[in-house]
Amino acid sequence: MGQTEVRVTLPDWVDRFVEWDCPYPSDEDRMRLVIALARENVERGTGGPFGAAVFERDSHRLVAVGVNRVIESNNSMLHAEMVAFMLAQQRVGSYTLGAAELPTHELVTSSEPCAMCLGAVLWSGVRRVVSGATWEDARKVGFEEGPVFPESFRFLEEHGVTLVRGVLRDEAAEVLRDYLRRGGTVYNG
Amino acid sequence: MGQTEVRVTLPDWVDRFVEWDCPYPSDEDRMRLVIALARENVERGTGGPFGAAVFERDSHRLVAVGVNRVIESNNSMLHAEMVAFMLAQQRVGSYTLGAAELPTHELVTSSEPCAMCLGAVLWSGVRRVVSGATWEDARKVGFEEGPVFPESFRFLEEHGVTLVRGVLRDEAAEVLRDYLRRGGTVYNG
Repeated sequence: MGQTEVRVTLPDWVDRFVEWDCPYPSDEDRMRLVIALARENVERGTGGPFGAAVFERDSHRLVAVGVNRVIESNNSMLHAEMVAFMLAQQRVGSYTLGAAELPTHELVTSSEPCAMCLGAVLWSGVRRVVSGATWEDARKVGFEEGPVFPESFRFLEEHGVTLVRGVLRDEAAEVLRDYLRRGGTVYNG
Repeated sequence: MGQTEVRVTLPDWVDRFVEWDCPYPSDEDRMRLVIALARENVERGTGGPFGAAVFERDSHRLVAVGVNRVIESNNSMLHAEMVAFMLAQQRVGSYTLGAAELPTHELVTSSEPCAMCLGAVLWSGVRRVVSGATWEDARKVGFEEGPVFPESFRFLEEHGVTLVRGVLRDEAAEVLRDYLRRGGTVYNG
């Protein structure tokens, strides 16, 4: 008899914390939300210092959010981006956010995607990725990005994904540094 | 009010199909299991033509299995390897299969890991990856691997992950070709 089910969950506080119907008109507005999620996740002790969200690119409607759940869920796949993608795809009822009948979607993430999440970006169907802290910021704290190379980013761009880096970079990186100061676990570092 | 939970499930037939206590002494024995899972997943219409499993590397004990669940679960992250990692980590109760108190683990997969799954290999904590069909085989059918480069594999090897390719390659590739002949959906191709 093996395991047959895994539950991927957001912490209880998230749904109350997020203003679902509030407008997020600029990249900075959207980045402030995911940085706040990352910070709150650390302060409440519910995961690593990372937050992400999926938006409709043109209406700026918030579709789903994610926070890092790796240690708390015993699941190394549960980076904030992965959680946000899973919840967004479930919400729209499609395995691709790029389905022809859907509006165009984008990912906003407090820290640049690692190798796994970059691959997931491609399969997710989002057409734009906005990130805050860079991989250099993450690395300074001890988080590795894995096999990510300049051609990884070029590959995504060649496949129609627009990448925007370093939005509110200092605020985003500060959450990483604060996690380290609090003695947070840097897994697989 | 947003989505707050996603369930990752194996199809009902899997737990009965797998011989949990049977020995899997060789790479070929282990590969036969994951190819059979991939084939059964196609024949029963419960997912794409991919199967994977996590074993203890030295005792060869089967820890968890996975099959592709992308279309059926509306979740582009649910490649067979990801499902197997999630179930294995839940079973051992750790976010890394490489934890000091655990035996060494390996991943066996019917088809070479894509960019996302290669990244996940690193975070999963397995120390060995055995694959059947190659990315060339997957590509011939129309499945893309994403931003994977020769240096991606070197990166994993430099981080202590042994890679063994092409075990029962023809049998594994035949499941992919059969999926195509049956008119299976090649997503994100």
